[in-house]
Amino acid sequence: MLAKIHVTLKKGVLDPQGKAVHHALNDLGYPEVEGVQIGKYMEIRLAGVTSDEAEKRVQEMCEKLLANTVIESYRYTLESTE
Amino acid sequence: MLAKIHVTLKKGVLDPQGKAVHHALNDLGYPEVEGVQIGKYMEIRLAGVTSDEAEKRVQEMCEKLLANTVIESYRYTLESTE
Repeated sequence: MLAKIHVTLKKGVLDPQGKAVHHALNDLGYPEVEGVQIGKYMEIRLAGVTSDEAEKRVQEMCEKLLANTVIESYRYTLESTE
Repeated sequence: MLAKIHVTLKKGVLDPQGKAVHHALNDLGYPEVEGVQIGKYMEIRLAGVTSDEAEKRVQEMCEKLLANTVIESYRYTLESTE
């Protein structure tokens, strides 16, 4: 099973990394760039769990470790690798 | 126009952050985790460009700034926001 997880900052949370990239792109000659948001993308390989178990446990992993739910939101999809 | 960009390490490139998360998840009681890969996810808002222009210019941005193409690969999709 492969879990594909996106963790992004919640709306209204300051994103200094995104701002830095935004300005860098404008300076590099891309004035069309109006905004940049930067998040994390994770792929987690799981073995020996059913897709129902994986669904529940990946959500737990996000809550406990992968996302800081005060300032970040997460979403994930599960793919069978068998 | 909204560009959604994934930047991930190429195969064979050491991923210490992924290894750290992998071990942390195992220690937290998730022995089913067999591997973790961590990358970046970026959303870039573009204004006043056609989708053909955006396609070309987002690729340039990735090559010049957003990805280190020696060790990272990138992929992106474009969505109309009008």
